[in-house]
Amino acid sequence: MDKFMQAAFDEAKKGLEEGGIPIGAVLVVNGEIKGRGYNQRVQKESAVLHAEIDCIEKAGRLTARDYKNSVLYTTLSPCDMCSGAALLYKIPKIVIGENINFKGAEDYLQSRGIEVEVLNDESCILQMKDFIKKNSALWNEDIGE
Amino acid sequence: MDKFMQAAFDEAKKGLEEGGIPIGAVLVVNGEIKGRGYNQRVQKESAVLHAEIDCIEKAGRLTARDYKNSVLYTTLSPCDMCSGAALLYKIPKIVIGENINFKGAEDYLQSRGIEVEVLNDESCILQMKDFIKKNSALWNEDIGE
Repeated sequence: MDKFMQAAFDEAKKGLEEGGIPIGAVLVVNGEIKGRGYNQRVQKESAVLHAEIDCIEKAGRLTARDYKNSVLYTTLSPCDMCSGAALLYKIPKIVIGENINFKGAEDYLQSRGIEVEVLNDESCILQMKDFIKKNSALWNEDIGE
Repeated sequence: MDKFMQAAFDEAKKGLEEGGIPIGAVLVVNGEIKGRGYNQRVQKESAVLHAEIDCIEKAGRLTARDYKNSVLYTTLSPCDMCSGAALLYKIPKIVIGENINFKGAEDYLQSRGIEVEVLNDESCILQMKDFIKKNSALWNEDIGE
């Protein structure tokens, strides 16, 4: 996988090692990683710090111009909330590690003009599949089921 | 205004007193306030803690059943991110203080089956109008402009 998806995957692995949900994300602005994050449901008892939200938060307060020149990399297809965050900040492109285990609001993002690229990377698919199999209740909680 | 919108408005006022953006929200589950929050862009240098996100976070990890029996009260029409959070958790109803100063994703929420009630309360309108007039750069940053 490319270096930015690898960085997102590394975040996901960090989360897994901490006993959390293994989803990671990075926000790349003008070709540089400005924020890295991963799902914090378990670690911080958080209902809102999905990987993408955590990563956007850690990137700090950016300008509209920064967001306009950014790409969001996430290991898993973004849910409605995370897709909404990308729409709020007009992030023009999202690269998605996989959408086999969960498919979020990709169609809606595209209808709103955001470029969506799905890699369906084998490592992302397998790590998530294994996690969901072993932690179905936690996973369902994370996607509001 | 009713007691729940008053509670959201009180949160907004708290934010204003701290030098922040005066938008507040409460999450009501089975008729009881489970979470209160307000915009934290200034106070926590946060790009993601809009009032609704802050309030959902402060409500903690709830069950799908809790969310199903909840109503989100917010002093201002919710942006794409906050609307997405309501969609993620299938919050069935959102009561909005006003949508004169900003109109978020209300139509999309309705198209996805969420009930939206807009009060256009005079206190909410005036507080926000005055704030935007005096803090246009900060306000634009908050809505990704």
